[in-house]
Amino acid sequence: MKTDPIRFDFNNLMAERTGGHGIDYGQVEKAGADVTRAVQWFYTKRSQGGLDFFDLPGKPEGLAASLALAAKLKGTCDDLVVLGIGGSALGTSAVHAALNSPHHNFLDKKKRRSLPRLWVLDNVDPEKLKSQLALLDPKKTLVNVISKSGATAETSAQFLWVRQWLQKKLGRKWASRVVVTTDPDKGLLRQIVRDEGLASLDVPSGVGGRFSVLTPVGLFPLAMCGVDVKSLVRGAAAVRERTLNDNPWRNPARLYGLLQWLLYRKGCRISVMMPYSDALFPLADWFRQLWAESLGKRIDNRGATVETGPTPVKALGATDQHSQVQLYMEGPRDKSVTFLRVAKFRSDERIPKAYPKIPDLAYLGGHSFGQLLNYEQRATAMALAKNGRPNCAFIFPEISAHAVGQFVFLMETATAFAGGLFDINPMNQPGVEQGKRYTYGLMGKKGFGDLAAEVEKFEAGALDKYVV
Amino acid sequence: MKTDPIRFDFNNLMAERTGGHGIDYGQVEKAGADVTRAVQWFYTKRSQGGLDFFDLPGKPEGLAASLALAAKLKGTCDDLVVLGIGGSALGTSAVHAALNSPHHNFLDKKKRRSLPRLWVLDNVDPEKLKSQLALLDPKKTLVNVISKSGATAETSAQFLWVRQWLQKKLGRKWASRVVVTTDPDKGLLRQIVRDEGLASLDVPSGVGGRFSVLTPVGLFPLAMCGVDVKSLVRGAAAVRERTLNDNPWRNPARLYGLLQWLLYRKGCRISVMMPYSDALFPLADWFRQLWAESLGKRIDNRGATVETGPTPVKALGATDQHSQVQLYMEGPRDKSVTFLRVAKFRSDERIPKAYPKIPDLAYLGGHSFGQLLNYEQRATAMALAKNGRPNCAFIFPEISAHAVGQFVFLMETATAFAGGLFDINPMNQPGVEQGKRYTYGLMGKKGFGDLAAEVEKFEAGALDKYVV
Repeated sequence: MKTDPIRFDFNNLMAERTGGHGIDYGQVEKAGADVTRAVQWFYTKRSQGGLDFFDLPGKPEGLAASLALAAKLKGTCDDLVVLGIGGSALGTSAVHAALNSPHHNFLDKKKRRSLPRLWVLDNVDPEKLKSQLALLDPKKTLVNVISKSGATAETSAQFLWVRQWLQKKLGRKWASRVVVTTDPDKGLLRQIVRDEGLASLDVPSGVGGRFSVLTPVGLFPLAMCGVDVKSLVRGAAAVRERTLNDNPWRNPARLYGLLQWLLYRKGCRISVMMPYSDALFPLADWFRQLWAESLGKRIDNRGATVETGPTPVKALGATDQHSQVQLYMEGPRDKSVTFLRVAKFRSDERIPKAYPKIPDLAYLGGHSFGQLLNYEQRATAMALAKNGRPNCAFIFPEISAHAVGQFVFLMETATAFAGGLFDINPMNQPGVEQGKRYTYGLMGKKGFGDLAAEVEKFEAGALDKYVV
Repeated sequence: MKTDPIRFDFNNLMAERTGGHGIDYGQVEKAGADVTRAVQWFYTKRSQGGLDFFDLPGKPEGLAASLALAAKLKGTCDDLVVLGIGGSALGTSAVHAALNSPHHNFLDKKKRRSLPRLWVLDNVDPEKLKSQLALLDPKKTLVNVISKSGATAETSAQFLWVRQWLQKKLGRKWASRVVVTTDPDKGLLRQIVRDEGLASLDVPSGVGGRFSVLTPVGLFPLAMCGVDVKSLVRGAAAVRERTLNDNPWRNPARLYGLLQWLLYRKGCRISVMMPYSDALFPLADWFRQLWAESLGKRIDNRGATVETGPTPVKALGATDQHSQVQLYMEGPRDKSVTFLRVAKFRSDERIPKAYPKIPDLAYLGGHSFGQLLNYEQRATAMALAKNGRPNCAFIFPEISAHAVGQFVFLMETATAFAGGLFDINPMNQPGVEQGKRYTYGLMGKKGFGDLAAEVEKFEAGALDKYVV
């Protein structure tokens, strides 16, 4: 098993390459006091139990429970359906995409090594949900309901609906097809686990949803689908050592958080993550939640209104060279790009030689697709840098569970540390409450009648002249 | 067939709802001179042949050719593979996703009404490409190679590789499995069409890639996959009439362009498109290219350096309420949100009543998923507006070919018109050339040796202290 470290190359963020648009060596050195403040915040917060994600690699309970249940359920299903949204869905989708076949769900059972197909249902679109169930056989489907609080409206609605579907075919045996992942003690899902006798796994109470992929939230479905979750966690543990280094120049998590914070203060408020690999693309989606929901905050730690936070954007190389790179190259200087690059692809294909008399084709032959993709990344990075557009790259030695585990933990730690620098609480999400309350009102939930009236009144005030 | 118009509701963009963060009625009125300037630019540009997309709905040649070839090839393939990137891929993917089953490629042949599965290969990732071919039988696969210029490196490389794969099984008959969509006269693909006797379709020379979905670029693969492309074009034609209205308050294309431009000038430089529908989500991806590549420009029409252009971001409702909405609600006031809402879903599912004693579940029962999704959109829109966060919505009467055709044409026209307001050329993409040239250098293309040396020198200058 390869255990090479992920490298972080930030040459193209620095002034040596991007001039005044980049970060100066001295600026990083001068940020020492801010780094110290953020590190102190990190350790204080951790000692208060607010950053329990950081200690997951050393706590084997979640891994052991996930592996044990997956072993028990091995071979009992052709399809695994995850009901979850946000942090209950994104990590699983991303790690699965990185480590299993790009066409996993299209492979026949033998080629899948009898592993289940994986369907992560992270929305309540009625057309999609109906189409989804038509593909499944309740007798051969395992459903993993994931919600830390237990009260997530979308996941609850899905659960009621899938439960009915199971019941129609299986009667009281429906319960044997469900695994619930939720808080160890609290919440309605935990209550249902007890009342109905469902199999269950715990989300540790000090780990927030978006930091939970290395808990049973991610580990159980990933283990079911054949991902080497032990190696994933070992990767996290290995990189954790690096995130403890007190020299910020040698600590990739602190460095990434610090550089992004300095860029934000220079006006680079958009943070593009651009993997040059289809398999790694969903990791950018996972990161997008982590970064946005953690750092996008109205008030700072003293209660002052700051309305701060970078906007993460995901892009895919080389594809988005034909969609977004024009803007990144020539538009406002409000962005930095973080590339993900793969040093060695798991398989590569050679471009055949043909049409020797057509120069625009002939030059391609003999190179591999992996080379082409990496050349394009290097070319784009250099063109951006020479144009004063800051960019950097995480280089995966290869796409392995160990490397993905490193990346996940590195980004989680960088995000929490960046929270310290931004001086906000990266662990809450107060801004989504009001929308939830209006939805409760519209849904007729008890106690929210006033909210329903408020929505009706608001909408009745719409002006016809503003509709066309 | 339903032909109801798409409505554009921009109440939540206006000052009546969002106070000083929104647009004032008077501001729109005062923009009259800018609108006139942009309209003049539009008609001048059009008369010069630079906006031929705008006249596509009245020109039946591309539609007729696409339908004729699709009729001829009907039933000859189980799989249709599109080789294309950027504008050659995004429109087809988006319209297909909107109008066919969410699980089209998973349906058996009968449930697909013998229509082919569709695979749009828009990248050169070697792992994905290898996995893709393993799913296909060359005898039952039709390959549609799409590149307007013919010289797109990614598509050319794919073509060489797929051609070899076809040749291995079919020998000289490989040519019968390929349809090329390219410039009517110029470029290497047109030359190969002639030399090898391949079937082909034309991309009109005055229509740019990102505006080409209503040419054979999109119409042929969509017709092959059973999309009612006639209705799609009729929808475009219907909305075209509305885009000719000289009263900007009644012209949704001009209004959208104008409001977005005014928002940009107020500091809302990020333009989020957020469909509350899985089927419509890829349209946001299609729009993302259109908006970014058209408006992200270094120089204006007089050659002055402006480095302008909004950054489009896509988000999915309700999913991204659990990922991005925290940032949209509380972060910097640099965003507006454009929702896409579906008035009536093609199918809906009722949430079952259960667990009457658990209030956090009981309120859900009896509502439908479509209601829940639309309630969430309304709740989010209102919460944003009350927080001074500008947003607006396009409301699809239902998801039909006609409605999607309307939306596509509306956004294309709005983008071109916005180009006039931003006073830049929305039809070129000079910013991607340098990256292409470096790639040519690295690939050893004749005449680009100096570029290769330049890259080597640049990379050799990397500092070790900036890699961790």
